[in-house]
Amino acid sequence: MFAMQEIGHVRSPYKDAQEIPKGLGAKHETEGVLEIREEFEPGLADIEGFSHLIIVWVFDRSEGYSLTATPPSDNRPHGVFATRSPRRPNPIALTVVELLSREGRRLRVRGIDMLDGTAILDIKPYLSNVPEERLRRGWLAEAEAGAVREPFGT
Amino acid sequence: MFAMQEIGHVRSPYKDAQEIPKGLGAKHETEGVLEIREEFEPGLADIEGFSHLIIVWVFDRSEGYSLTATPPSDNRPHGVFATRSPRRPNPIALTVVELLSREGRRLRVRGIDMLDGTAILDIKPYLSNVPEERLRRGWLAEAEAGAVREPFGT
Repeated sequence: MFAMQEIGHVRSPYKDAQEIPKGLGAKHETEGVLEIREEFEPGLADIEGFSHLIIVWVFDRSEGYSLTATPPSDNRPHGVFATRSPRRPNPIALTVVELLSREGRRLRVRGIDMLDGTAILDIKPYLSNVPEERLRRGWLAEAEAGAVREPFGT
Repeated sequence: MFAMQEIGHVRSPYKDAQEIPKGLGAKHETEGVLEIREEFEPGLADIEGFSHLIIVWVFDRSEGYSLTATPPSDNRPHGVFATRSPRRPNPIALTVVELLSREGRRLRVRGIDMLDGTAILDIKPYLSNVPEERLRRGWLAEAEAGAVREPFGT
């Protein structure tokens, strides 16, 4: 087992999971603040130069896990590792946010999809994309195309 | 504190950190296998549809942390959260790999930069890129441009 500590938390307008946009075409333009604990502030030096950050956080309101999940964007179950379900063996979440500004140990960001008070484990600079022409998106692309929304239909 | 468990491990040709390409222009084309524990195999259902996966793993050979780090690609120290340094408050690493094939609970992938035996915490589908025209890469872009490689020079 590996023990992970909170390095800070999210200040978000979302107080309830129901409020967070989910599923196909969900836009995450919501702004919020990442409040890093005082002792870790020196770790933020030079972060302002990056437009996007990867936030590693904890689904800390999620309990237990299931090895299959039926996402809001589809009506078929998939293996949990082929989804972003919160109910996973390790409740670790990733969100890419846009860094708008920094004030000391507070980072104002756009694109949050976390609840208020969510524990942050790590922040990393977003460095590169996968070439678009090589990216395949499995069941999600199928769901978006509306090709197989009725698995028991004609 | 949050307790995280190993869901599997990496089979890699790298036995020593010195062997892993690092720094500017390092290419990660190395192939390896992600061996998921038997109990978690049902969680892999439908993962074959995705070309790229995000592997969440542990810098399990790293000890302690430092809030500043001088990366191999630069000669200036930066805050640890603006780098990919392994010596971070929570030793969590992310690698995007290309999924080549699946045999049961073994995923053959390209692009690994982990040591043999490294603990895996989670696997997620890679779903989307940041628009290239909006991506800024801070000190890394500067280092790549060779603009400031000699901070004490003329």
